[in-house]
Order: sequence, then structure tokens, then C-alpha cells
Amino acid sequence: MTEESPILFYFDFSSPYSYLASEKIDELALRYGRKVKWKPLLLGIVFKTTGAVPLTQAPLKGEYSRHDFERSARYLGVPFKLPEKFPVATQAAARAYYWLHDRDCALARQFAHAVFRAFYVEGRDISDTATVLNLAVALGADENELSAALAGQELKDRLKAEVEAAIARGVFGAPYVVIDGEPFWGADRLPQIEQWLETGGF
Amino acid sequence: MTEESPILFYFDFSSPYSYLASEKIDELALRYGRKVKWKPLLLGIVFKTTGAVPLTQAPLKGEYSRHDFERSARYLGVPFKLPEKFPVATQAAARAYYWLHDRDCALARQFAHAVFRAFYVEGRDISDTATVLNLAVALGADENELSAALAGQELKDRLKAEVEAAIARGVFGAPYVVIDGEPFWGADRLPQIEQWLETGGF
Repeated sequence: MTEESPILFYFDFSSPYSYLASEKIDELALRYGRKVKWKPLLLGIVFKTTGAVPLTQAPLKGEYSRHDFERSARYLGVPFKLPEKFPVATQAAARAYYWLHDRDCALARQFAHAVFRAFYVEGRDISDTATVLNLAVALGADENELSAALAGQELKDRLKAEVEAAIARGVFGAPYVVIDGEPFWGADRLPQIEQWLETGGF
Repeated sequence: MTEESPILFYFDFSSPYSYLASEKIDELALRYGRKVKWKPLLLGIVFKTTGAVPLTQAPLKGEYSRHDFERSARYLGVPFKLPEKFPVATQAAARAYYWLHDRDCALARQFAHAVFRAFYVEGRDISDTATVLNLAVALGADENELSAALAGQELKDRLKAEVEAAIARGVFGAPYVVIDGEPFWGADRLPQIEQWLETGGF
């Protein structure tokens, strides 16, 4: 791969560590002259393939993880409050992201941040299609077009294909970052990602 | 708890991330005037309680983790080579540790480092009681006494009680560090541990 390939950032809108990474990854990449391609996926589908259990449902680990989400957010200086309704389905948000991305990738990026912050700062229910539409329209998306797209089969198939492609390349969790073929799993790999970008690999 | 309580460091001798943390935790604590109490446990027993799967046996995650062990070791500047026989049973090493600790805690610490390094640097089979004895005797332990203790019920019960106590306090993985009641799971929490010690909590 060439130096110019974008860094891949796989995430689920309902994943707290994905949110934490989403607030850092672009700025970090930019410091080393790199761009990032954001790829929302559905962890529920990924976990069906791998047999993994959602973090917060695992015995003992679940309780720890809720505590660790908040501490890790404070450590990274990112505002965070675990929503009362958590985790939630993120199909509508992910589908809207890809639809927006095909039309205006900068707007899609703003939308992704808006979805994460609506969920983890304002506690809004991002599983609700109306909320998703609302966030996109506030950024300038056409409500009727997006609403029709979200109801159609084409966008469903698009997200399905994106998730399958992610699983096929080995993505088993989120956030999952790939730099020139090198995979990094977890928001706690941000320091290694920085070292990798700084040194070109170690 | 008082400032003087030791930091608790739970680990399994067969856990790569435990080994990485073991090479850092004492020096890190010492920088903030704190001592560390090492507590070997058996992840196999812990996982029976929590239903967790060993990392390297998880689909997709297994392959990634083998790669991440080595990269994380390079990142931390710790020599590391995944042994051909991995993971291994660590009952003998853990039992010997507690026996030594009751007699000479400094020697027990040296022994723990020796076991980790024999496994992760030299590729020796630390599941073998003869190897465990050999490492302890090289540090000055009495071979006959330790050999007899390893064959007896008392030391088996001691390790069992230590593992049960760890599970009872919420330990679900390794390394697992507790600072004045605050739990940190994983070698990748070393930066948060440092921040916690520096600031007294955040």
C-alpha cells in the first residue's frame, strides 16, 4: 500500500470506546499528514460470527467496563455519560452515514460526530430513525430523500455488505483501526497508533 | 484505605499481558512511593466462573492477539517471544510463589520474574514442576522443602483460596491491578495507572 491510503476506522455508534476513539482519531492522523476513512458497522452482526458477548453483559467484566468507560473518558478529556438505554441498535445511523458519505463525505463526518455526541453527551435515543433523520437534516441533508433511502432495500444491502467486508478482513470488535494493513483494536491502542504513525512501524 | 496499602497486582504466569505488566508495575509504583503486592492466580478457574474464552482461542481475536502481544512488547521495550507450547498450566508456579512468599517475599518477587522470563524469553515449559523447582532453587530455595510442599494438599488449598478471593473481589482477567480499591484491567491501563498515582485519582 502507498503512504496515501487512508487509515480505516471501524466503529459502532453504540460502542463507548468507539466514541472515545472517534473524538481523537482524525486529529491524531492529521498530525502525521494522514486521512481517516470512517466505517460504521454493526457489532451485533460481528459478534454473531465470532460468538463474542457484548462487554457490558459479561459477568464481572460488565460492571468493570461501565466504570472503565467513564474513567477512560475522563482520562482522554472527552465528555461522556452512559445513556440509560444502552446498548442500542444502530442500523438507522449506520445506513444514514453511508448514504450521506456517498453524497458529501465531510457532511457524513459531521453527522457521525453528531450521532455519537447525541448519544453519549445528550443521552438521545439514536436507535430511533426520527432522531437520526433529525441529526442529518440539521446538518443540511434532504429529509425526504434520506427518509426514502432509509426505508429502501438498497441501503440495507449496502450496510450488510460493509459489515460482511469488515468481518472478512478480520474485524472482530470496535473501534478497530487499520493503518497500511496493520490492525489496532480498542481505544487503548491510540498510543501505539501514534507511535506507529510517528515511526512508520515498530 | 490508607495511602500505605500496597497496590494489588493479580496475574497468571501464562498471560502475555500479565508478563508485560510485570516488567513495569514495580518501577511505576516506586516512582510514586508505592509498593506492589503480587498475586498469581489461575485464569482457567476465573474463566470457568465468568464463561470467558481464552483470548487466543477466540475467532478472529485469537490471531490478532498473537500479533498484538508482540507489538505491545516492542512498544513497551520488553523482550518477548510467544512460546511454542502456549498457553500452559501454571498451578505449580503459582503454588511455589505463595510458598516462597510466606518465607521471603523478596525472593518470591525474583522467582516470579524468573518464571515469566523463562517462559516468555527462553521458551521454557513453566508448567513442568521440575522447571519451577529449578528456577526457585537457583534463587536459593530449599529443593526438598519446596518439592514436598508442592506435592502436599496445604499449598493446593492455599492457591485455591487465593483464586476464590480474587474472583470474589471481581477479578475477571489478568493483569488486574487494584489501587486503593480502584480496579484497572489490562497492560494497556498502565498509562491510566500512572495518571491515577500521579493525581491521586481523576
